[in-house]
Amino acid sequence: MPPKNDRFLRALRREPVDCTPVWLMRQAGRYLPEYRATRAQAGSFLAMAKNPELACEVTLQPLRRFDLDAAILFSDILTVPDAMGLGLHFVEGEGPKFERPVRDAAAIAKLGVPDMETELRYVMDAVRTIRRELDGKVPLIGFSGSPWTLACYMVEGGGSDNYARIKALALNDPKALHALLSVNTDAVIAYLAAQRAAGAQALQVFDTWGGVLSPAMYREFSLPYLTRIARELARGEGAERTPLILFGKGNAPYLEALAASGCEGVGVDWTVTLEDAARRTGGKVALQGNLDPATLYGSPEAIRAQVGLVLDSYAAGNGGSREGHVFNLGHGMSPDMSPDHVAVLVDAVHALSARPA
Amino acid sequence: MPPKNDRFLRALRREPVDCTPVWLMRQAGRYLPEYRATRAQAGSFLAMAKNPELACEVTLQPLRRFDLDAAILFSDILTVPDAMGLGLHFVEGEGPKFERPVRDAAAIAKLGVPDMETELRYVMDAVRTIRRELDGKVPLIGFSGSPWTLACYMVEGGGSDNYARIKALALNDPKALHALLSVNTDAVIAYLAAQRAAGAQALQVFDTWGGVLSPAMYREFSLPYLTRIARELARGEGAERTPLILFGKGNAPYLEALAASGCEGVGVDWTVTLEDAARRTGGKVALQGNLDPATLYGSPEAIRAQVGLVLDSYAAGNGGSREGHVFNLGHGMSPDMSPDHVAVLVDAVHALSARPA
Repeated sequence: MPPKNDRFLRALRREPVDCTPVWLMRQAGRYLPEYRATRAQAGSFLAMAKNPELACEVTLQPLRRFDLDAAILFSDILTVPDAMGLGLHFVEGEGPKFERPVRDAAAIAKLGVPDMETELRYVMDAVRTIRRELDGKVPLIGFSGSPWTLACYMVEGGGSDNYARIKALALNDPKALHALLSVNTDAVIAYLAAQRAAGAQALQVFDTWGGVLSPAMYREFSLPYLTRIARELARGEGAERTPLILFGKGNAPYLEALAASGCEGVGVDWTVTLEDAARRTGGKVALQGNLDPATLYGSPEAIRAQVGLVLDSYAAGNGGSREGHVFNLGHGMSPDMSPDHVAVLVDAVHALSARPA
Repeated sequence: MPPKNDRFLRALRREPVDCTPVWLMRQAGRYLPEYRATRAQAGSFLAMAKNPELACEVTLQPLRRFDLDAAILFSDILTVPDAMGLGLHFVEGEGPKFERPVRDAAAIAKLGVPDMETELRYVMDAVRTIRRELDGKVPLIGFSGSPWTLACYMVEGGGSDNYARIKALALNDPKALHALLSVNTDAVIAYLAAQRAAGAQALQVFDTWGGVLSPAMYREFSLPYLTRIARELARGEGAERTPLILFGKGNAPYLEALAASGCEGVGVDWTVTLEDAARRTGGKVALQGNLDPATLYGSPEAIRAQVGLVLDSYAAGNGGSREGHVFNLGHGMSPDMSPDHVAVLVDAVHALSARPA
């Protein structure tokens, strides 16, 4: 049964909608006081993510406040390498860390695809719980980090300024890096297929760090693995009704290739105009984005004006039509953003994109 | 009198050279033990930058080790706002900070262009000292931060993850931001003209943070000010023999506009191929770049191979010719890089680009 509000899924199929759907990357996050309360109750970010009831609670929180057109599973992009045995933990103010990073061919050879219904059962339970609680109100998006982005954290052992270790591996032992990316890709495909089987109605891959690569390296170490995910997921059960979105920060140079991957949607950051992105992808995929998240620091009037510019930029590149656009930010929200401003944004998207009756 | 080694200046004029010239952004830096020794002697980064003899010493250090084709003034990009009264200081591990950031129209209205031969005399003295000590060996590059990049630090009060404050200013009070960018532009032009008068033989503007802007905002808040710098410097004394390079991280979408600004060279990061950059700029300017700095973490063999790819990429976009290319990294060096690998890189550039006799 399609959700009561199916704007998001229709837009991903480039079908007509009454107004442009909107959701926001990291819409369940620290900018919401109720999120901070649930996190305090859980004791830590990871305890919250690993508890299906609490993950469900924070997933639903932004939907109670804002007229959002999709929910996104609350989880972390590093659940998969954690289940591979790398030991994910969080250091306050420093972000995610792995206790056992993988840095050579020997460590990589030991990695395997985790079992989705045992080692990652908490994620699938969260998907099932959220679907039940959503009760068909809006569709639920499942997600994963991309093979390259997961590999960045797995090799660096955490965040990085310059990706020294993984780029050295790419240069000195590309075969080992390909082995890592290959097992990551197998795991991401299994992970997304399991989320789909558990009830996710759309899937998104976050290639957060693809943009730190040179074009030659992107085409060798990120793009082929994203393409394999799109092709293999398109063959699985439920594929025809579960669209895939490939999001990447800094993916503007590669939009044509991403649109040809077999995915349904491409998510872009704010360093490219949607007019340009729509022209270059020529209606092959839906586009998702791409307001600069920092717009939320502006006044309500400025937010409305910028929302209008993004909507119109998409239409300008899409032959005057607003169909095939999912509104979003170009990157995730920050903890110091104002919930009131989010409400302004969401309402502005719907009001400024309402199709003539 | 032209320097004994004038490859760099000839390449910026797109004239034939015996091999492609090379210098490296942040070539005078913490990766060199002799730099760390001088810094320890000075007591702090800022004390070193403000002492012309020590600034000269660290400027010359990499030239003693490597066959570099240009020296670049050792200084900081924030000297100008410091001279405007913002109170530059450095917090260990956190980078530059301003004691008195400017955050509104009233604070901006109080800013003026500093006097170059009093408030920034230490920079001009460093230029004169370095020119004397270089004794015509290689040309000396002077530099400045771009108006937008200086404004980022001036408004944020230091580095930033998301540029919340300056983007809010751009949205809520664009007139105030334009006033700030305008005084910054006047100051940058005066600063670069003074460096030229003191002996700098080429000039570079670092638009380090232009790439964090959306295309519309880049075209409103960074590009016009870069263009004004290029136009006004082209009219000043010594202009005909002192080429200007506009470098920007994330400037790939704007290469055509930058090439039309009136500058002699455009510096690009590694997220675009030089083949593409050369095609799009069509011989209007020289191009500088663009090896991923992380390549220096690779093996000597990998470094040589990657240098060859960058050289060949440029030629492929430039009708098969290597003329008009200044080799550089796509961004600055990091403290944990190996001086031995820098030697491999510099020698590979010269060896792999040597023109047939």
